Amino acid sequence: MQETQGKSLMESMLLRAVRPYKSGQCDGGDTVDILIDRGVISRVGRDIVPPRDIPVVDGGGKLVLPGLVEAHTHLGYSFLGLPWFRNNVGSNLQDKINAEKAEIKRRRIDFQLQAERQLAHSLALGSTFLRGHVSIDTDTGLEPLEGVLRAQEKYKELLEVQIVAFPQAGLTSRPGTIALMEEALSMGADVVGGLDPAQSDRDPKGSLDTVFGLAQKYCKPIDIHLHEPGELGGFSTDLIIERTKSLGLQGRVTISHAFCLGDLKPADIARTLDELAQNQISIMTTAPAGRACPSAAQLVRAGVTVCSGSDGVRDSWSPFSTGDMLERAKLVAMRNNFRRDIDVELALRACTFEGAAALGIADYGVEEGCSANLLVVPGETIAEAVINHPVDRIVIKGGHIVARNGSILENTLFG
Amino acid sequence: MQETQGKSLMESMLLRAVRPYKSGQCDGGDTVDILIDRGVISRVGRDIVPPRDIPVVDGGGKLVLPGLVEAHTHLGYSFLGLPWFRNNVGSNLQDKINAEKAEIKRRRIDFQLQAERQLAHSLALGSTFLRGHVSIDTDTGLEPLEGVLRAQEKYKELLEVQIVAFPQAGLTSRPGTIALMEEALSMGADVVGGLDPAQSDRDPKGSLDTVFGLAQKYCKPIDIHLHEPGELGGFSTDLIIERTKSLGLQGRVTISHAFCLGDLKPADIARTLDELAQNQISIMTTAPAGRACPSAAQLVRAGVTVCSGSDGVRDSWSPFSTGDMLERAKLVAMRNNFRRDIDVELALRACTFEGAAALGIADYGVEEGCSANLLVVPGETIAEAVINHPVDRIVIKGGHIVARNGSILENTLFG
Repeated sequence: MQETQGKSLMESMLLRAVRPYKSGQCDGGDTVDILIDRGVISRVGRDIVPPRDIPVVDGGGKLVLPGLVEAHTHLGYSFLGLPWFRNNVGSNLQDKINAEKAEIKRRRIDFQLQAERQLAHSLALGSTFLRGHVSIDTDTGLEPLEGVLRAQEKYKELLEVQIVAFPQAGLTSRPGTIALMEEALSMGADVVGGLDPAQSDRDPKGSLDTVFGLAQKYCKPIDIHLHEPGELGGFSTDLIIERTKSLGLQGRVTISHAFCLGDLKPADIARTLDELAQNQISIMTTAPAGRACPSAAQLVRAGVTVCSGSDGVRDSWSPFSTGDMLERAKLVAMRNNFRRDIDVELALRACTFEGAAALGIADYGVEEGCSANLLVVPGETIAEAVINHPVDRIVIKGGHIVARNGSILENTLFG
Repeated sequence: MQETQGKSLMESMLLRAVRPYKSGQCDGGDTVDILIDRGVISRVGRDIVPPRDIPVVDGGGKLVLPGLVEAHTHLGYSFLGLPWFRNNVGSNLQDKINAEKAEIKRRRIDFQLQAERQLAHSLALGSTFLRGHVSIDTDTGLEPLEGVLRAQEKYKELLEVQIVAFPQAGLTSRPGTIALMEEALSMGADVVGGLDPAQSDRDPKGSLDTVFGLAQKYCKPIDIHLHEPGELGGFSTDLIIERTKSLGLQGRVTISHAFCLGDLKPADIARTLDELAQNQISIMTTAPAGRACPSAAQLVRAGVTVCSGSDGVRDSWSPFSTGDMLERAKLVAMRNNFRRDIDVELALRACTFEGAAALGIADYGVEEGCSANLLVVPGETIAEAVINHPVDRIVIKGGHIVARNGSILENTLFG
């Protein structure tokens, strides 16, 4: 087996004896072999005889999942690999923004290095797709983005990274930010971010017109952080729906968090979910245990694409996230009180197939014709793999083994 | 080092270079040595010279916690060590009770074996104290209790187990159950259990009078499962408080779950917490992510002892719990949105010092005079140990190393 020789991805290999996960099925399928031809799954079947000279990897009857989708994290500001951050930050938003800026300065954070550490960490746990928000802010300027762009480039063969230009300190309310956002999008940020148009920018119409205007000008999708609660969040959601519809941006807009969908009145939630579904607006939820949030089951029933993410991984905002999207599926299941295997599978779907749909990832899955981005993990059922989220993992990207047991195979990286 | 030789507990050893956790402190203390003399911490200090011939264990500067307290689980019905239970159980209480009975029968569950597996598992993760509910039911009779009592006896040197006689299918509403409860208490069950006096027994007064009557007759503490929501749960809580007060049972009563304390009106919650504190009634919360539950911060502020537990570990009710009380502290923190180190420490306190208070455990802590039941775990701060809940652990019971890295040292057990 040549798993650590050379970094050329898009390789060929035969993965023997694995049980593929398909969306909506709570057991892995029958045990099959998977033939990968230059990074693409070319055959799934029994007793495949491999072409000469390609590596053969024994899956030992384990499950094989498509690469996990980390649909919402922040890049550049994680403290992964650094001493523990003793969190004594106040509870309001401004406290948190100030604390982050102070800590970034105090620790002289190297944005590229921290982004790389986080990408390596996510990949090692099986995420082969990741959407990361990078703060675009008149204080720090474009330095964080520059570092994260370099990390994205360095990892491009290993992990598909989408960078969101995220106006964390305010967009229209903070002079100079719009120009920075334009620069960020010109430099290569992949997605236009937004933030609480009412509570942060104090001007829901102006804020959202700006976000949607940038998306049109630069032909990029949109991903808006919406923490606004109850009826206020419902109003902002309506404004997002109206613009998505009138500008024909169906399938290009994600609302992240959307806490209001957990505490609006039931009839308002039902109407809003229908309109989100009609306009193909995806909802990203981390499924926080400590506050109201959208019901994953309700979203799915309404036909809304629901994806999930870690949010910040070990940063000054919160210490909890490990960046493990299998564990995240467990947290989604726990938050939604999903105890049945069939419901736990729905939670994993948010971290796989639904995430791929939200992020516009093509050729996703464990079927012939799909890209060979795979995670091999033990589990009698999908639920067992999610709930144990074991360290025992093999991560395959482009037909190449890139990580085992939670660690990147270093030779694979940039060797 | 003689860690696997002989099973006689109450041994002597020197634990070098550890940082003791004290209640209310979010860093470990200064690095010290801990001298253990026949199962008791006899000295804590620097550069202790051990008496000849006692084992010396290097703590490597790690944290040392008192043994974790699992204050609420169920014993005998776990599927640990068995094939994955494909959960397809309906959502109401009767569905769950029926499914459990059917699965216990189908799998021909050996109650003693499953209890032993669970005790070994908990101990390996650092719990040295455990309160386990055992179903007392006219269908299964006393067979589950007999098995669990044998497991308790077998593990008595390794783990302090309190058995709750728990009338899961109803107490006064199910003829024959009271007699079985009396038999269970005579046989050695340590605690009188109860269950939803209104929703299950349909007779709050009759049900609670029976529970408190049994507690008086057999001189045992009380631990009542209370799932009843809102004002109904508030009423049952009031009845429990009234009986605790009038019978002088302060410090002897625990209410488990008490979901109503998460959804009563704020003023009612405040009044109830005050009365719980005055009557030294403890609250056990698993901090479920998927439903209203008591706020750990509110309980502590009101002076109510708050402990935590895993509830069922891998049973037919729910697949989520691992039985790891360090992970549980993380879930308590997440449910309460505790992000600061000082708040995460409060979550761990529920799984250590507060749990010990609720269960009436004497000589608890990492100080001179305390029993040497300890968990050595890496972490710069308490929060880091909780949030990482790493596998790297040394578990000491009675001055004897009984587990390392999540596995029992087999020779220690019954060798």
